[in-house]
Amino acid sequence: MIIGVDIGGMSYKFGVVDNGKIICKNSLKFDKSISSEESIVLLSKKILKLLDDNNISRNCINGIGIGCPGAIDSVNGVCDLAYNLGFDKLPICDIISQETGFECKITNDANAAALGEVVYGAAKDYQDAIMITLGTGVGGGIIINKKIYDGNQGKGAELGHSVIKVDGRRCTCGRKGCLEAYASASALIYDTKIALRKNKNSLMWKYIENNLDNVNGKTAFECAKSGDEAAEKVINNYVKYLGEGLLNLMNEFRPQAIVIGGGLSLQKEYLINRLKAYCEKYFYGFRSCPKVELLTAELGNDAGIIGASCLML
Amino acid sequence: MIIGVDIGGMSYKFGVVDNGKIICKNSLKFDKSISSEESIVLLSKKILKLLDDNNISRNCINGIGIGCPGAIDSVNGVCDLAYNLGFDKLPICDIISQETGFECKITNDANAAALGEVVYGAAKDYQDAIMITLGTGVGGGIIINKKIYDGNQGKGAELGHSVIKVDGRRCTCGRKGCLEAYASASALIYDTKIALRKNKNSLMWKYIENNLDNVNGKTAFECAKSGDEAAEKVINNYVKYLGEGLLNLMNEFRPQAIVIGGGLSLQKEYLINRLKAYCEKYFYGFRSCPKVELLTAELGNDAGIIGASCLML
Repeated sequence: MIIGVDIGGMSYKFGVVDNGKIICKNSLKFDKSISSEESIVLLSKKILKLLDDNNISRNCINGIGIGCPGAIDSVNGVCDLAYNLGFDKLPICDIISQETGFECKITNDANAAALGEVVYGAAKDYQDAIMITLGTGVGGGIIINKKIYDGNQGKGAELGHSVIKVDGRRCTCGRKGCLEAYASASALIYDTKIALRKNKNSLMWKYIENNLDNVNGKTAFECAKSGDEAAEKVINNYVKYLGEGLLNLMNEFRPQAIVIGGGLSLQKEYLINRLKAYCEKYFYGFRSCPKVELLTAELGNDAGIIGASCLML
Repeated sequence: MIIGVDIGGMSYKFGVVDNGKIICKNSLKFDKSISSEESIVLLSKKILKLLDDNNISRNCINGIGIGCPGAIDSVNGVCDLAYNLGFDKLPICDIISQETGFECKITNDANAAALGEVVYGAAKDYQDAIMITLGTGVGGGIIINKKIYDGNQGKGAELGHSVIKVDGRRCTCGRKGCLEAYASASALIYDTKIALRKNKNSLMWKYIENNLDNVNGKTAFECAKSGDEAAEKVINNYVKYLGEGLLNLMNEFRPQAIVIGGGLSLQKEYLINRLKAYCEKYFYGFRSCPKVELLTAELGNDAGIIGASCLML
């Protein structure tokens, strides 16, 4: 059995995972009145308590895997910087190991999710796969031979920060034209609002109750399903840019599969089928290039804990 | 000792490599009057003759590594398609193994060059590096832990066919806006000709003796060095697009180094220093992201034979 820890924006989620199934879990909200170090010490105590509460012997635990947002030094087990969490050069693995006695490994949260999907989720039948997480940003995880490939000091796999349009939209990272600037949920919301302003008769106005603040990642998708032309255009444009990003990954990595995760992946077949059609149309390659399967993530809310636990396999 | 075979556009080059040095070598021009299979059989006989001529015992040979253009199935040792060579589903490794008795491995020529540079060339101090070859096209090779990563059935690492400008220039692959369409020598020549047509007073006209057919990959570089403004603009634009492609590779793979090879790499420090300046300016990353070294390929004309031989290490 392995302990998986999923560090999110508001809380730590942690659980005991056995063969890909969560046996027991708990969570701990961030307490802003204590330091980051104290917070990790507290997390460690809660992990040990979870074991005790469930009568799980410490001898049965093979270690702790952690998924954490931000810039992670996976070699040294340090969160170099997670701005939103206030983590700065935080030696998470050292602290948890010292407090619990368990071996501890850490990776970026997108990498952990990707590993989980390849070991126990949508891509479990494949050795080499890439996961793209479509949320506020665009995250990426590269799995080669069922292991994370995260580059020098764990700083690779920033798949959202690959420019697909030189001189294009400004990205949060400082470059212009990154995939993230076109394929994140934030980008989709931005495009949906532009379409709304241009199309006063779009069904989308009714969907958002005439309030642009109500636009979210579902707006254009749901209204396109109802046949709204403006919404359909937004989705076609979204599919085109995301499709170009996926084709790039296919040509560069030629993985066996690409798993789409994050909030927008809840559109499942509606999104995946359009992406498949786009990629098949513009697929580069010699005659015999193997197909890359496009899959929707399967682990859902448990992806973080399960994926992190896979670090110790 | 290992035999390296470099299949080029006009001939086979092959040699015996010991610890990264070529001990003896020979070449064999393509004979269009025989079939591809017969051609590989003839190559095999010439390889054995090279050993005999140099009194090298077959017992001292640890196998044959081959670099070949086109679409290679590295798992099965087959050249799926090399249009220019007329190879079509050609089981190169099987034929050579049968004729020589040696174990045989094959990869794409760009992968072989990359492996050679990481094992014995410019990036020999690194484990993880990428090589970009700037020639008629843009080739790529990905080396992870001193081994080629070439994706499913060896069809990955098509680093030239990654779109950096959606809806951009038409690429030979069918997509629009690939790195190859902006960063190959062919693209540079195309841009140089456009600049010449626009700038009747450019020094470049003198350099090409007023004949556009004389434009090559050096024209803009050499005239920029002489201070010609039009040439300088061509080079700045070239560096920008190639730089964006390199930054993408840094963010995706975070290798320790990127090696620039191919004809344009003969510009050495003049090109590399400009690329470094561009990449440093637009480098994405959190504070502690490790630097990616930019290097010029070192193995030159022997890269093909040496790189291919590394397949058997």
